[in-house]
Amino acid sequence: MKIIVVGGTGTIGKAVVNELKDRHEIIVAGSSSGDISVDINNPESIEDMYKQVGPFDAVVATTGKVHFEEFSKMDLEKYYIGIESKLLGQVNLVLIGRNHINDKGSFTLISGVLNHDPIPQGTSAAMINGALDGFVKATAIDMINDQRINIVSPTVITEAMGVYAPYFRGYKSVAAAEAALAYAKSVEGLQTGQVFKVGY
Amino acid sequence: MKIIVVGGTGTIGKAVVNELKDRHEIIVAGSSSGDISVDINNPESIEDMYKQVGPFDAVVATTGKVHFEEFSKMDLEKYYIGIESKLLGQVNLVLIGRNHINDKGSFTLISGVLNHDPIPQGTSAAMINGALDGFVKATAIDMINDQRINIVSPTVITEAMGVYAPYFRGYKSVAAAEAALAYAKSVEGLQTGQVFKVGY
Repeated sequence: MKIIVVGGTGTIGKAVVNELKDRHEIIVAGSSSGDISVDINNPESIEDMYKQVGPFDAVVATTGKVHFEEFSKMDLEKYYIGIESKLLGQVNLVLIGRNHINDKGSFTLISGVLNHDPIPQGTSAAMINGALDGFVKATAIDMINDQRINIVSPTVITEAMGVYAPYFRGYKSVAAAEAALAYAKSVEGLQTGQVFKVGY
Repeated sequence: MKIIVVGGTGTIGKAVVNELKDRHEIIVAGSSSGDISVDINNPESIEDMYKQVGPFDAVVATTGKVHFEEFSKMDLEKYYIGIESKLLGQVNLVLIGRNHINDKGSFTLISGVLNHDPIPQGTSAAMINGALDGFVKATAIDMINDQRINIVSPTVITEAMGVYAPYFRGYKSVAAAEAALAYAKSVEGLQTGQVFKVGY
């Protein structure tokens, strides 16, 4: 298969590339490095990426920003960071990609544990993860051309604990390589509409 | 208690008013009727509503729009209808209301069944419901002044089946009065961070 890994230069992205590269042709898309550059906040940039890549079989997303801050200091503008990046950036990968992907192609997005097991400062992350989980479950039953869509929802990633440990006290982390397995299950299997929880 | 019911002139809103009115002082807020008018898409209108009402103990929301259409015809603009109305309209009721509500006050929002049990054309509804469920779970643990927040997630409402039945074939509906009980549990109980599922 020909697989685009959006965010393929990040912690999870690199593990996904490593998991898939021996069996598939991988195109790494990143905001500033990789085989091709893409800004997921910009629909035109996404359209350009798909046009440059040509026909493909799967898109994998491992990227997206949300704002972490205690609720008393959150405002509408800070919620919009996650809405425009992690939520609508990934939704746009699907909305635009559905017109370019091969029949039976698959989309695999990323959410995370925080709408199931919340942390302080995680109100926006929980909102965006819940939105993505819901979007995937409902979109899967309504797709055309036998396209599939799933989402990987990992707990905090071991390799990211250097930065994230203070936010995730008491959480058992999971290796990026284990999250990458869920992407392989989504891309190389036949399930659709699934939220693949990893490490929780 | 003094309770603001936003959307109190709608199907669920009227049932909530009926459930609570004998025990509490109710202010019905609606877009065009009720005791006070409010446009939940407009933060200034929400601020005006709270200023006019003065100190209060609970806000209940039973309103918010999302766009229903088959996924192949959905675009970014159509997703924004739900983001700006049902999602951020209700989030703004909390962001602005937290500065006006009495200590130990409660917010009770509305989501729905569609991120758990999806229907055709329901991709935006599932996204928005998931976002709201996640927001409520994470915000509850991060609130100040002993404020609480819960969400009511009903299946399709019996009184609305005249319009919604074609979208919800095979779904068992629930009476608005039963959904109203969940609002009473949220407002008059002490739980927080809960998604109260009704009828499913």
